[in-house]
Amino acid sequence: MVKERGFRSTLQLKRIILPEWVTEEVCLGQKIESEAERMAIAIKISHRQVLEGTGGPFGAVVCELDTGRVIGIGVNQVTNSSWSGAHAEFIAWTMAQETINSYDLGSDNPVGLYSSAQPCVSCWGGLFWTGISRLVFAATKLDVEQYAGFDEGPLPNDWDVALSKRGVSVQGELLREKAVLALQEYGRLGGECYNSGRSCEE
Amino acid sequence: MVKERGFRSTLQLKRIILPEWVTEEVCLGQKIESEAERMAIAIKISHRQVLEGTGGPFGAVVCELDTGRVIGIGVNQVTNSSWSGAHAEFIAWTMAQETINSYDLGSDNPVGLYSSAQPCVSCWGGLFWTGISRLVFAATKLDVEQYAGFDEGPLPNDWDVALSKRGVSVQGELLREKAVLALQEYGRLGGECYNSGRSCEE
Repeated sequence: MVKERGFRSTLQLKRIILPEWVTEEVCLGQKIESEAERMAIAIKISHRQVLEGTGGPFGAVVCELDTGRVIGIGVNQVTNSSWSGAHAEFIAWTMAQETINSYDLGSDNPVGLYSSAQPCVSCWGGLFWTGISRLVFAATKLDVEQYAGFDEGPLPNDWDVALSKRGVSVQGELLREKAVLALQEYGRLGGECYNSGRSCEE
Repeated sequence: MVKERGFRSTLQLKRIILPEWVTEEVCLGQKIESEAERMAIAIKISHRQVLEGTGGPFGAVVCELDTGRVIGIGVNQVTNSSWSGAHAEFIAWTMAQETINSYDLGSDNPVGLYSSAQPCVSCWGGLFWTGISRLVFAATKLDVEQYAGFDEGPLPNDWDVALSKRGVSVQGELLREKAVLALQEYGRLGGECYNSGRSCEE
């Protein structure tokens, strides 16, 4: 086998590290009582992300449903990391899986994902294997497309029914108006819409 | 905010590192001429993964379509990493994105993903944002479910049409029989089926 210059020999992925300002807004272990408060935090970090210029306008937290304890936090890191999959939801649930040291977030206490926006096709597909019991989102797919210019992909029409069938309860549009403000700000500032070029050919 | 003992204060994800044996089979920068040879490598690492006991029976490589150069490699790391999203395809395309330092694998040379098995719902959803131009797989969803016992999730019936519409050509069942051997071996050895518990309720 020929090894070429410039190619790494160790087969590993880089470490995803969230911007430092995130811990000023929310910490792992913090308890957040109500679902509206959990969502307010997800939206707050989505908005601060826009103001700080540290990535796409999306934020998410994963909390234990009974205690409200935060076990995962994410803001979009696609442009910083060059990972197309580094969406806020993915980072939040993966961090939660590291926190409980299990790939199944349903194995211990039931947990919920609070996301500033409806999942795109990638986050929808990934959700099925996380063990998450509840999904709450704020802005809709149309909001994301209309105000921030993103393509959300070919999400099946029955995306929420498919989740319900697998035991994931879904609630949308909680604090939607607040989440839209961050999306509008991102659009106004001309933020990068980082999906692949071919996502727009449909 | 109350920080609790046992919770990490730095917000980051761990580094995914592939098992050392992988570089005995394939290296970044290696050129692999034909699609059948690229697939043979993906299947080889899926099978060795079973024999080494280092994770689920899935392997994938990402190659530049014109040169055949390998820019990403993945074997399933769900059980090792506790990431439900650490599928072979995800790792391979993310590594490729790091190699070219772009979240859009379509931004430079067109690239193909060669996977030992048809994508599950999570890898299907993620594919749309990768910039990948071509998907070739070996074993089918039914093979994966029948021989290795995995659930592949609620993949839409028109999953391949949806990819084609976005400019991703899809070819299935290349060297399918070889890929099935690895799945059968995994089933015979009683390998862990690591999707979340609720994936089986449908």
